[in-house]
This record gives sequence, C-alpha cells and structure tokens, in this order.
Amino acid sequence: GGLYHSSPPPLRFWLYLILQSIEHNGFKTEPQFQEKYFNQTLDHFNFNGIGNRTFSQRYLITDKYWKKGSGPIFFYTGNEGNIWAFALNSGFITELAAEQGALVIFAEHRYYGRSLPFGKDSFRIPQVSLLTVEQALADYSVMITELKGQLGAADCPVIVFGGSYGGMLSVYMRLKYPNIVTGALAASAPILSTAGLGDSRQFFQDVTADFQSVRPACSEAVRGAFSQLKELAKRQDYSRIQSEFALCKRPTSAQDIHQLNGLLRNAFTLMAMLDYPYSTQFMGNMPANPVKVQLTCFDLYSLYLECADPTGCGLGFDSLAWDYQACTEINLCFESNGVTDMFPPMPFTESDRKQYCYKRWAVVPRPGWLKIQFWGDALSSASNIIFSNGDLDPWANGGVRQSLSSSLMAINILGGAHHLDLRESNEADPESVITARKTEAHIIAKWVKMERNRLKQFH
Amino acid sequence: GGLYHSSPPPLRFWLYLILQSIEHNGFKTEPQFQEKYFNQTLDHFNFNGIGNRTFSQRYLITDKYWKKGSGPIFFYTGNEGNIWAFALNSGFITELAAEQGALVIFAEHRYYGRSLPFGKDSFRIPQVSLLTVEQALADYSVMITELKGQLGAADCPVIVFGGSYGGMLSVYMRLKYPNIVTGALAASAPILSTAGLGDSRQFFQDVTADFQSVRPACSEAVRGAFSQLKELAKRQDYSRIQSEFALCKRPTSAQDIHQLNGLLRNAFTLMAMLDYPYSTQFMGNMPANPVKVQLTCFDLYSLYLECADPTGCGLGFDSLAWDYQACTEINLCFESNGVTDMFPPMPFTESDRKQYCYKRWAVVPRPGWLKIQFWGDALSSASNIIFSNGDLDPWANGGVRQSLSSSLMAINILGGAHHLDLRESNEADPESVITARKTEAHIIAKWVKMERNRLKQFH
Repeated sequence: GGLYHSSPPPLRFWLYLILQSIEHNGFKTEPQFQEKYFNQTLDHFNFNGIGNRTFSQRYLITDKYWKKGSGPIFFYTGNEGNIWAFALNSGFITELAAEQGALVIFAEHRYYGRSLPFGKDSFRIPQVSLLTVEQALADYSVMITELKGQLGAADCPVIVFGGSYGGMLSVYMRLKYPNIVTGALAASAPILSTAGLGDSRQFFQDVTADFQSVRPACSEAVRGAFSQLKELAKRQDYSRIQSEFALCKRPTSAQDIHQLNGLLRNAFTLMAMLDYPYSTQFMGNMPANPVKVQLTCFDLYSLYLECADPTGCGLGFDSLAWDYQACTEINLCFESNGVTDMFPPMPFTESDRKQYCYKRWAVVPRPGWLKIQFWGDALSSASNIIFSNGDLDPWANGGVRQSLSSSLMAINILGGAHHLDLRESNEADPESVITARKTEAHIIAKWVKMERNRLKQFH
Repeated sequence: GGLYHSSPPPLRFWLYLILQSIEHNGFKTEPQFQEKYFNQTLDHFNFNGIGNRTFSQRYLITDKYWKKGSGPIFFYTGNEGNIWAFALNSGFITELAAEQGALVIFAEHRYYGRSLPFGKDSFRIPQVSLLTVEQALADYSVMITELKGQLGAADCPVIVFGGSYGGMLSVYMRLKYPNIVTGALAASAPILSTAGLGDSRQFFQDVTADFQSVRPACSEAVRGAFSQLKELAKRQDYSRIQSEFALCKRPTSAQDIHQLNGLLRNAFTLMAMLDYPYSTQFMGNMPANPVKVQLTCFDLYSLYLECADPTGCGLGFDSLAWDYQACTEINLCFESNGVTDMFPPMPFTESDRKQYCYKRWAVVPRPGWLKIQFWGDALSSASNIIFSNGDLDPWANGGVRQSLSSSLMAINILGGAHHLDLRESNEADPESVITARKTEAHIIAKWVKMERNRLKQFH
C-alpha cells in the first residue's frame, strides 16, 4: 500500500508537476506554427535490429518571418515535455525571428509529448533505452541537416535555443555539432550541477535564500511547518495530514511521509523557479511573484497544488521519461539538510540513486559520464554560447555564471526566475531582462553575420 | 562454389592483407611496453541490458620516459588491428616521449586484436552492433579519464596520435572530447573521403599516378595485364589463371574473376601506400621502395602475395570488423574505371554497398552520418590538430591537405607514403619526413605548454 511502490528520488516531482499541468491544461496551439512530423532514425548508435527503424518526431515550424533561403534558422532544442509548452512559453524566439527574418523550428525531444518511438510501450524495458541525451542531439542534427535541404536553406546559419534541460541541449549542440550549429542561447541551463560538479547542498540553499530575501521570517515559518508535519507523522495522525495537505489518498506509512516531504519541498522549489513578475499558465495557475505574495508561506500550496500526489492523478509519460534520464545520464543528487536550507533533512546519495534506478529501470547510473561526454567545466575550446541565468532561479548556480571568453558569455538577469529571458515581452518585465534580451539579440545577429561572411568565401 | 559466398566491396582487401600478415607474422613484442587490460563499459549509449556490462580492452603502456605526474600523456587511438602492430610501427611516438618526458599508451580498438567484447561470438548479429566509431571514442575518453586518476596524472595534458583510420579517430577525439584531449596528430587520416566528400575516382587515380611517376610505361603494362586476365577469363582458362596468380583454389566463375581483379587492384594499392624508403615488416615482407624496384610491374605479387586469397588462408576477425565498419559508418565507395586509372572498371556504388551490407550484416549503411557526426569539412571551430600526409599515399587526397588556421595545420611530406612520419627514425628517411617530425614535435611541445599554463590558473 502507501502512495508509492518504490522510492523515486525526491527532486523529480517539480518536473512532474510542470508536465502534469501542461498535459491537463491542454493549452491552445498557436496558429502561426505548423505541426509536423519528421521521419527520424530510431537508434543513431546502432545499425542492427531496431537500429534500422525510424519513428515520427514532432516539430513545430513557422516561416512567417523568414527571409526565405537567406534568413537564419532559430531552432529550439526541445526538452522534457510537450513541445507546444516550450513554443508557447518562449515568445522571445519568435519576436527575435520577426526582427531578424528567421525561420523558427521547435523540435520535440524523443520520448516526450507525442514523440514516443514505441507509443504507449515506450517506457517498457528495453524500449526505453533509446532515450539518451546523445540520441536526442543526433535527432536534432539529422533533422536540421535534412530540413535545410528540403527547405532550400543550405546556407542559412542555425542558432539553437533552449531553456533548462533544453538549454543544456543547446550548449551540447554547439559543443558536439558546431558544423551544424553556429551559436547557442542557453537559458538557465545547469550544465555543471547536472554533471555532478559543485556542492549538492547548493540547490535547496538557493531556494531557501529566495524566500529569505523576500521575507526573512519565512524560512523559519517553513521550518516550523515541516516540524509540525513530523510531529503529526510521529503520532501517525494521517487523517489530519491528509486534510491539511489536500491529498487524494491518506498516507499510511513513514515512507509516504518521506514522499510528502519531497513533494512539499518541490512546491517551494517550483515557486522559486517560477517567480515571474506576472501570472503565468506555464505550470498551472501561478500568480505574479508567487514568492512575494505569500504572507504565510505554508498556505500557498492550495494555489496550485490541488490533488498533487501522483497516485491520485496518474503519472504522465513525460515524468517517466525524466525519471529514466535522471537514472542514467543526468545527475540530480541534490540534498536538503535543514541546516543550510529550510527543508527537512533528505539526503539523496549516489548509492540511493543506484539502488532506486536499478530496481525501477534495471539500469546503473553513470555519474561520471555526463562530464566526460559533455565537457563539464572544461569549456575553453568552445565558442559562441550565451549562458543566461536569473538570480532568483535555484538552478542558476548549477550553470555558468561568469563569462569564460569573448564568445562564451554569461548574462545575469537581476530579479529573473527560470529562463525568464526566453518568454515573450511583458509590461511587467524588469529592466534587467529587457537589457538581457537586447544583448542576446545583438550577439545572435553578430554570429549570423559572421557565419554568412564565412560561407561567402566558398561561393 | 567459387571463392566467396557473397560479394564484399573490393577495397577492403588491402586491409585484410595488412591484418593477415600481422596475425601470421606474430611479430615480437617490445619489452618496454606493459600489456594491460582495462575494464571498459560495453555500451556507452545504452544503459539497459548488456549496456550494464563491461569487457576487457587491451592497452600497452610505458612510463619509461615519463616525468611522473607532470609529463604529458601520448595516447595512440588504436585502429583496425592488433594494437602491437601500431605500437611497433609508430616509433616516432616513443622517440618523442623520450624527448618530452611523456607517458605512452597504445589503446586497442574494440572488436580488434584481443579486445573482442564477446570473444569468438563478437561478429555475430547483434553482438557486432556495438562496433561503432562513437563507442570507440567513448572507450578512449573513459579510459584516459580513469587512467589519469589511477596514475596520478590528473593535470597531465593528453596528446592523441593515430595513423590512417587511427588518425581519423585522433581528429574525432579532439573534435568531440577537447575536454580530455589537448591536441591531435593525425597522420594520413582520410577524414574527408570516408565522410563521402570528394570524387570517388580520386583514390585509384592517385594509385595509378604513383606508378606512372616512377616509370611512365608501368601503367600501360598493368592495363595490358588486366586485359590478359580478362581474355583468360573469357576463355574460362581458370587453370592458367590459378598458376599465374598463385591461388590456393581454382577460380570457377565470372564472380571469382571479379574478386580476383579486386584483389590485384588492392595489391597495387598496398604497394603505393607502403612505398617506404626501406624494407618493412609492417605488412608482410615489403622491399624498400616497392613501386620503384619493380621492373615488370606485374611480377611483383609473388613478393608478398603468396596464397593471398582469403578462402585459402582463412579470414581473420579483424577483417570482419572492418567490413562491418565499412558497412555502417565509414564510406569507402571508391571506384576504378580504367580511364582515369589503370585498373579494370569496377564501379562500387552506394546501392551496391547497401545491397551487400544488408545481406551480410543486416544493416543499412548511413552515407550521410559520418559527415553530420564528425563535421566533414566544416572544421572552422576546431583547433590543435595536425593533419600530416605523404604525397605518395593514395589516401592523402581524402584528407586535409591545406592548413585551415594557425591551429589546424596541414603538413605535406614530399616522397612520403602512408603515415611514414609515425615510424621510427631511419637512415633512409627523406629530408621531408625529418623536417615534418621536427615541426610536429615543436607544435606538440607548444600545445602541452599552453595547456599547462591554462591549468595553472586553477591552482
């Protein structure tokens, strides 16, 4: 019994929540985008067996602003969810396309949204095993190459864009396929922390700091609330816990309480990540400045956390996919300890991860792999990447915060949350994000121009 | 009946011959190298099933010249054969190590030599499918990372070396893993032709030119000999053909003659490739300047082509492995036509390749993939690579012949054959290779110094 069969690593649920709301909100499609499917190689790294097969990969495309055959291609490297979610929440890219005459493509990541290689069987073993970062990058490289041919865009420079994990993919595209990609705007891309670099306590410390900076007493209130939950759990007063936290099912064990703690911690995390200056539909109904508006920090769950536990509402495929990625290549062993942060101590070590992942997916995580494969912090030979981060975003310190060279630029967005700069312009935008977008536009225009000049030498 | 069950693409046999002789010569090991095995991840790109398993990868190592903990690491990215063959024929690397205080490692390519992941079952389907360029590069990256840790060499810059396909791997290491590899010396690496770039007639045209330049009448003599073979075949005088070409078995069909033509063509190719200024054991008994010494071009087979047909002598595993690689990622659709070259017309198209490869290995080649994955000629964002080529080598024009920038340098070795510069110093060396090695040594020392200075910033 209980809420879960197994013990998923705590940090995943914020993603679950995000994707769940996307799925359920069924948000409108933008008429400017055409929805298409690309016949994609199923296994880029194996030529036998199913390696010979293909699958249908979804992408969105608009040539509304394109100077056909000469304007650049702005390509969003889709991340862990329905591609429409990213297209509709990355208005900056289409605004910039209008300005610079670009073709815009949003490509959906394999195993997410409707790009399921094996349909509803995609998350069985071994079918799930073709879900890797390398396959996703190869998908984008093959897709760009073929679409350029089809669209008469052979000489059009390609700029990749992405937020969060999508930003990581943009960086990786520029690292691994600079033959295909001229430059990358990576918004809020935690390429260092996910490669196992840095302090595993940093993340929840930064979430805590967000709340503290708005209302210093808040972190104490949260600590108090978690103590209260601990007390109720100790007394096994599960009924009271259920009503307080609006859970669909009553918890029945210490294990359930552990999961609930993780869920609550993720709710605060989400708020910090999505602390945009205006209300958004990106992940359910989020008010403007959610961190600020909450006077009693603990009440706010009801705003968007109705029936949030997965067993009540059903786990979406997207969250399964992310769970698999966090069990293989992406390191997310962040821990809270109640000392450097306001959350209950919830260690999550590599050993915990290994145990869970083997049980759940029959895989053994490779903690050192991402750093080997995607360079970790050894980026000195890379070029043409913008790393943007908002200082409200707890993911920021897992990314590149300082410029490394004249072509590896860090942009800090004061008062910015998780990839705020990718969102469309809004009256409530702080000056910092307006400036950041101008800088980004300028750099991207420069990259495009340089690449055009380079290509001219061959004609 | 007949010599072959199926129809392998003609160009492969020169490799067969090379590897066959290595296997059979059982050449001595160098006492300075220790032979070791590394516990390597079997499938870097799949975490399920056998992806969790490991295999034993052979490598040779010597710290005889190493300034322990501070000297650089010279790492040979093993290619299609027994790693001892490359270690014993790349004396320049150890000479340079002695000069620059380097640790030397020669790593064996998976599926070659003794690095067979599934022993004698390695070439069954689907076991063979883990033989890819990407897996090989990941092997080297993981091995370097782990050995650096074990040997206390964390801050030692790594330079990769390779000849021919091994040179391609060295280039790719620098392109894809510059976080691990500071620079690459790629000797005779045909990265362009194998990516499908350039003219498919170039290769045999260059073989022909080698013979013409030494003795202009030679190419006519060869043409005449091939006509004679054609006549004998037309008359089905297989007995005479057998005795003329010292074949173990008597050919019995037009198909056998087609194979024989390919074999003979490869014999000339080998001579051109291995036209070293002194006799070598690298690939059987090759005299000094084989192209020059042959007065009647056609007699020379007997020098090293005794019982050369594979059905008589048994195909080695290494040639199976190469056949698989040429059926998947590596493009080798070179053709002879009797007009731009001295050989009988033997077209080999993508369509021929596809048909053969599907039949033999149940794979469909992906002709565009190598160019997408390893950049083709779009190398402008790369750095720290030396592309050396000898102008006698028919592979040379499939590589980079012109410097692309101050850190992507082409070195031409006048009078040089296939990766002559990697061989140990010899009294008969032409001035050109002596100069080339000096230049290479100088550039490598500079890379190592620059990397050391860069690393110092972090300490």
